[in-house]
Amino acid sequence: MSTRDVNLQFRLKQRPTGSITREHFDLRESPLPSPGPDQALVQTLLLSLDPTMRIWTEDREQYMPPVKLGEVMRGGGIGRVVKSNSARFKEGDIVTGNLGWQQYSVAGDEASVLPPPGKMPLEAYMGVLGITGMTAYFGLLELGKPKSGETLVVSAAAGAVGSVAGQIGKIAGCRVVGIAGSDEKCKWLKNDLGFDAAINYKQPKWRDHLKAACPKGIDINFENVGGEIMEGVLSNMNLHGRVVLCGLIAGYNENPKAAFGDFSTVLMRRLSVQGFIILDYLGRMHEATRQLGAWVVEGKIKQRETVVDGFEALPKALNMLFDGSNIGKLMVRVAK
Amino acid sequence: MSTRDVNLQFRLKQRPTGSITREHFDLRESPLPSPGPDQALVQTLLLSLDPTMRIWTEDREQYMPPVKLGEVMRGGGIGRVVKSNSARFKEGDIVTGNLGWQQYSVAGDEASVLPPPGKMPLEAYMGVLGITGMTAYFGLLELGKPKSGETLVVSAAAGAVGSVAGQIGKIAGCRVVGIAGSDEKCKWLKNDLGFDAAINYKQPKWRDHLKAACPKGIDINFENVGGEIMEGVLSNMNLHGRVVLCGLIAGYNENPKAAFGDFSTVLMRRLSVQGFIILDYLGRMHEATRQLGAWVVEGKIKQRETVVDGFEALPKALNMLFDGSNIGKLMVRVAK
Repeated sequence: MSTRDVNLQFRLKQRPTGSITREHFDLRESPLPSPGPDQALVQTLLLSLDPTMRIWTEDREQYMPPVKLGEVMRGGGIGRVVKSNSARFKEGDIVTGNLGWQQYSVAGDEASVLPPPGKMPLEAYMGVLGITGMTAYFGLLELGKPKSGETLVVSAAAGAVGSVAGQIGKIAGCRVVGIAGSDEKCKWLKNDLGFDAAINYKQPKWRDHLKAACPKGIDINFENVGGEIMEGVLSNMNLHGRVVLCGLIAGYNENPKAAFGDFSTVLMRRLSVQGFIILDYLGRMHEATRQLGAWVVEGKIKQRETVVDGFEALPKALNMLFDGSNIGKLMVRVAK
Repeated sequence: MSTRDVNLQFRLKQRPTGSITREHFDLRESPLPSPGPDQALVQTLLLSLDPTMRIWTEDREQYMPPVKLGEVMRGGGIGRVVKSNSARFKEGDIVTGNLGWQQYSVAGDEASVLPPPGKMPLEAYMGVLGITGMTAYFGLLELGKPKSGETLVVSAAAGAVGSVAGQIGKIAGCRVVGIAGSDEKCKWLKNDLGFDAAINYKQPKWRDHLKAACPKGIDINFENVGGEIMEGVLSNMNLHGRVVLCGLIAGYNENPKAAFGDFSTVLMRRLSVQGFIILDYLGRMHEATRQLGAWVVEGKIKQRETVVDGFEALPKALNMLFDGSNIGKLMVRVAK
């Protein structure tokens, strides 16, 4: 198998204050890395783009250390083993892990080998069978504790996490209402994913629409956005409702104040708000992927992807998460 | 037993926007009420003053209907039965319930008869053995779930709820740090109540003092204040810490924005924030008062009161909760 001599890498050059751009990175041609003993050389095929990556680029409170200036940008992905010094990997194996924003990387113990390509397209392992699917699975089931007949509202519902969380809510017997940023997204949620209702928050009267879509109030809020969206949801929560706080994307980019919300509603309605990061459930990954895989095979969970082609598109593509132009799981195809 | 012919009442005249004053009430001389069958006429002895009463005067989201304009101001208290048409009450019985801001009221099924005066002063039934004691008991034990060796931080720690919550935290084996607004209060918490540390938030470096007082971080926040105080606490919380959100007094009076807080910390540290109102635990009142009574007798829980004399002092005295001039349980003595 032939490999090129250079390894294109995006290294973080400066920390963004607003939207991330190409200028925040150095695009560097590095030599191909050499795998050590028990390691493999991996060619990147797909890289995942997730809202949380915007946080990693900034030096502020977060759940992992920020990416250092000069470091290859952190990023999960899927790659193919092109050379192996390890009994765990053989040439041609498909692996997943933190490959980083680069064309080649070295994989060791931390990378997982995926099953041989079968019914599932590789893209599924970036979404419903990957980190975002697990996030929806554990967030909703372990913390949201959905019961049949309850009303679940999911924000950023057409995103990789929200779309799966809503579908799991349907499996659990909930009335599921999604909030998303375009009529096209709302149609997809209702017509293809079986959401009971979907609200376009760019409509001026979206709060009224949300209220009308939740005639029995809201029991569970799977929250990915924060800010005004979250306030609109909280104002319709029932007594003792549960909020799974999974993301605050409204505040990641240009408006940190969007992470601020009204604790008064939490107090008066005796809500429980549970912060949630998938890190705490990595040890139970297989439980989630087994069940999610079964649901995908049964047609109960559907995935949609937005795939952007080409390594160099990475910084620009990341912004699609913030300007609302992607639907479903966003990823960049680095190589076939 | 002689009763006067008139019943002084404070009726809500207009809704305050800032501090509550005498002008927000009508002081009216009403005729003595006549108890119906199975009711008793009760003379008010003590009236409780609680931060939550400020909320009741405003027409905004809350956990009970606001007091209507023209209505007698709602308020818990202790009174003496002066005339009874009920087998449940006899003349001279001491009862507790929502007597309202008036010198006489009619009590029915909802009033509880207190045990005959014994070792416990009546004032204890307004605080540690009353609603505020129960609030501390269930809030900390049921939601805070303190474990020995954990660090508990209580805000408004020298108030009626906070001072009891902190002492229960000590009984549970926690390191207990209180936040209060004067050196006198802090001294009381440390020297008399056994808090491990007490922080005067009016010191400019109080955040540094708080951090130093919690060398292992904070596991539980029993939060009564909100706003900057809560943010200072949250910024020192440990991963997976618990916040019992019992009050947001910083926002009740003049600064509703103080109910706004940063959900980002809740997300990143995977905190759980649980709104809490004692209403949900009234059915378990006896469990709390039995245990709290035992702790009082054993000397493990101490109460301090600020007692203001005279019915007409009520509106002004309520403000002591907001200007920080009371210590412990605040109440007004209406009659001996």
